[in-house]
Amino acid sequence: MQRTSFSDQHCSVARTLDIIGEWWTLMILRDLFYGVNRFEALLEQLGISRKVLTSRLKRLTEENILRKVPYQQNPLRYEYRLTRRGLDLIPVLLAIMGWGDRWLTDKGAVPVEFVHKDCGEVITPKVVCNHCGGTLTAGNLRPLPGPGAAADEIESMRTSSINPELFSEE
Amino acid sequence: MQRTSFSDQHCSVARTLDIIGEWWTLMILRDLFYGVNRFEALLEQLGISRKVLTSRLKRLTEENILRKVPYQQNPLRYEYRLTRRGLDLIPVLLAIMGWGDRWLTDKGAVPVEFVHKDCGEVITPKVVCNHCGGTLTAGNLRPLPGPGAAADEIESMRTSSINPELFSEE
Repeated sequence: MQRTSFSDQHCSVARTLDIIGEWWTLMILRDLFYGVNRFEALLEQLGISRKVLTSRLKRLTEENILRKVPYQQNPLRYEYRLTRRGLDLIPVLLAIMGWGDRWLTDKGAVPVEFVHKDCGEVITPKVVCNHCGGTLTAGNLRPLPGPGAAADEIESMRTSSINPELFSEE
Repeated sequence: MQRTSFSDQHCSVARTLDIIGEWWTLMILRDLFYGVNRFEALLEQLGISRKVLTSRLKRLTEENILRKVPYQQNPLRYEYRLTRRGLDLIPVLLAIMGWGDRWLTDKGAVPVEFVHKDCGEVITPKVVCNHCGGTLTAGNLRPLPGPGAAADEIESMRTSSINPELFSEE
């Protein structure tokens, strides 16, 4: 990929996208989550080139999202497993899936559903506040500079803020 | 971008990434969310090339994520506003940000915080079940073919399933 690295930006969105923002990466995570975790199976499932898959798996392993685990000794063969850090990306995938189900799918024609084992229901993922459990939306949040913000970011965040009038009603 | 389109895949993750999966796109959405919504301001804020920014804004407008709204008549000048469809991507951004805050940020050095106006607390976004409110994790979900799944997908989902033993404990 020819692009600047965003990892030095003071922004958790930028830093995360620097790792997972490449389009194939989330598709690989999706397939690992579905239990497709060997190189040849991923190759077939994704219709990706050998070279691109190799490079993405290498990056994800370096970033400790995946690790290689032997499943056969002679000859030695590996499969890829999600680490805790990788498993923690599943909610991100669910949020992406929820949006696609809502906006890009014919009504009632959702391709995959998930049953929440704890309650037995088919879920629609919701992103909520950890304090009150209320749904988080663009309209009910106010950004603040965090403890790790740089001085110029604090200034720019003081002068701009999320303004409901900036949003289209359409 | 030289890449295959995933929009014809029967998967809401693939379809969504076909629109938002390009790395700059989510950064543009982030900045619009922060209230940066004019071309020159986005250019400066993102450090992106004029050509790439033009192309991404065009795509997002075509996909009805943004729309162009005049803010000045003479000469005519536009700004970009998130549509309802675009605003509904904010929870996806929050989920991405939450992961980055947790895994890529020094403890306590979060660059941006959000106050949930409804309860007044600084939030950590959580992805939960819409039925029982329980946190959704890789471990407590079981995938099912949905009404819109293709026949071969139903077959492959029957034979594979999310298996906790496939996950690394590390």
